[in-house]
Amino acid sequence: MNMQTLTVELGDRSYPIHIGVGLLDRADLILPHLGQRRVAIVTNTTVGPLYLGRLTATLNSAGVEALPIVLPDGEVYKNWETLNLIFDALLSHRAERKTTLIALGGGVIGDLTGFAAASYQRGVPFIQVPTTLLAQVDSSVGGKTGINHPQGKNMIGAFYQPRLVLADIETLNTLPERELSAGLAEVIKYGLIRDLPFLEWLEANMDRLIARDRAALAYAIRRSCESKAELVAADEREAGSRALLNLGHTFGHAIETGMGYGVWLHGEGVSAGTMLAADLSRRMGNISQADVARIDRLFKRAGLPTVAPNLGIEAYLNHMAVDKKVEAGRMRFVLLRKLGEGYVAADAPAELLRQTLIEATGPV
Amino acid sequence: MNMQTLTVELGDRSYPIHIGVGLLDRADLILPHLGQRRVAIVTNTTVGPLYLGRLTATLNSAGVEALPIVLPDGEVYKNWETLNLIFDALLSHRAERKTTLIALGGGVIGDLTGFAAASYQRGVPFIQVPTTLLAQVDSSVGGKTGINHPQGKNMIGAFYQPRLVLADIETLNTLPERELSAGLAEVIKYGLIRDLPFLEWLEANMDRLIARDRAALAYAIRRSCESKAELVAADEREAGSRALLNLGHTFGHAIETGMGYGVWLHGEGVSAGTMLAADLSRRMGNISQADVARIDRLFKRAGLPTVAPNLGIEAYLNHMAVDKKVEAGRMRFVLLRKLGEGYVAADAPAELLRQTLIEATGPV
Repeated sequence: MNMQTLTVELGDRSYPIHIGVGLLDRADLILPHLGQRRVAIVTNTTVGPLYLGRLTATLNSAGVEALPIVLPDGEVYKNWETLNLIFDALLSHRAERKTTLIALGGGVIGDLTGFAAASYQRGVPFIQVPTTLLAQVDSSVGGKTGINHPQGKNMIGAFYQPRLVLADIETLNTLPERELSAGLAEVIKYGLIRDLPFLEWLEANMDRLIARDRAALAYAIRRSCESKAELVAADEREAGSRALLNLGHTFGHAIETGMGYGVWLHGEGVSAGTMLAADLSRRMGNISQADVARIDRLFKRAGLPTVAPNLGIEAYLNHMAVDKKVEAGRMRFVLLRKLGEGYVAADAPAELLRQTLIEATGPV
Repeated sequence: MNMQTLTVELGDRSYPIHIGVGLLDRADLILPHLGQRRVAIVTNTTVGPLYLGRLTATLNSAGVEALPIVLPDGEVYKNWETLNLIFDALLSHRAERKTTLIALGGGVIGDLTGFAAASYQRGVPFIQVPTTLLAQVDSSVGGKTGINHPQGKNMIGAFYQPRLVLADIETLNTLPERELSAGLAEVIKYGLIRDLPFLEWLEANMDRLIARDRAALAYAIRRSCESKAELVAADEREAGSRALLNLGHTFGHAIETGMGYGVWLHGEGVSAGTMLAADLSRRMGNISQADVARIDRLFKRAGLPTVAPNLGIEAYLNHMAVDKKVEAGRMRFVLLRKLGEGYVAADAPAELLRQTLIEATGPV
């Protein structure tokens, strides 16, 4: 299989996304993006044993020194304490302004490493090597980095773009089923917000994706990254259209925060959260009950939960009130105008929202 | 006295610096820069009682709601724990992406607030209202923000520009003498690195500055800010010429870190650190012993220490090895080619550095 390359167009901060098989062995793809022949590879205790040795060998063979920084695994560690483990290691080993940080792992590792790169000595170069489907189709692209705060997910962070995204599809072979499904939630999202043909392709090919058919995965990743790259290039700091990428995320973050970080995977929160957004879209007269059922079916086939926990209206409203999309005290939701077209709604009637939160949720 | 206005030219991120008397009462200067009629004012337990009420009244009278966030005072609090107090308050009060953070205080408050603004929800608007001479002539301008790490000063942070700098000279009336002197260290720096006529003006007018002559202070602040604005506009992220602003800072940071944060004021470290840089410049044959004595005299007249503590060579080298100017393991120093002309030296001979650290330092 050939490697495919996309570009995120951001002027002098543009960068390539390489998608293919065996890319962890390709020092030639990494070398042009290093500031010096010294990097720190940030990974976790799950991914490290699988791929850290291989990436290190690739770099060493090209004369690049690699400092390993191995963090505990899980959303619950996406916090300041873990971030500080990175800073401690960098300072102890005298990492410099031109030392590149490489994130080897999923979304949590990418977010932590990106924020560390944005903040260490006020900014050092940064490369994403995503090893989960979710990271390959979404979180490794676009420069959103950060950590959670007890009061809200991703509340502390930076927009900080990587120099390179290296998505080795082969790493998905070791991905647990539950994580594969979580990644598919974000893949389906692209279809729902802006790409009806892709949504139809997903309906036709979900079984191949679940079976990890390599060609199907490569196509889904490329098409997802194309959408992401376009939206990021048009609106890097989410002043407008980029917000569409948050379909299901306002509800989803409330689920993640409300249940305790790590109990629901991010993609699971997005799936169930998208069903709430779909329900609210239906109540607002945008889409039909049949449309809602169609979305529900696709998420279920992807192995995802489609019923959000009933945390109570107050818990949802409190968690959502600190969402980054809140403006002048008004919550804003990404809803569906129709299948394949999302929009940002600042005017969702409180009564309909209340109905959604009560009637469309299930037991915790 | 009229207000004077300079501009830091950074394209669509350009911003004004207003310098004058009574600016804390001028809502008209602040309003155009707010994203919404809601701000958080970050200050400390020393400055708060003096000026928080006045700035709050100014804003309230213009219909702007102001959340006060009062932090403990001192360099020792420039760390993650204090930064988190800002995040906690912002989240508890549901500050949004368009809520502006206003830093009311000296360099520590400005650095903490700026980094909080850079990181809260991945970036909110930010205004500097510096109330110390050091902050008015240096740290409030240019977008360097951050916190200290036990292993190194300012190691964690962001380049993040304010929307406005409002320097009310009147606030210097309440500044302790020691802090006034600390600010003068940075003022003298501009003369040394790029402005011999200003250095001569300082020699002629140091007594007026120490006596807080308002016109003399206004001139010194304006001339300092002009230099700072020029250097920042030419090299925002310190890839080159901006590094000149760090004259005395590599040594100075080692003094601050080595003695324990807060024992030496930043400006005191810069003064004694500059004398080490001057000594090294002399040993390298750039300037004469008479030049060194002339610098020494001016710092002394400003009420500043000119002898760095003898921490031992190892302590200095260890602290300086994590300096942000280190590249490929080589320390880089800002030295003097002559009075009024600084340069970045990557080639200071280790033996001369050793002599400086031993022979030009005094008891701890």
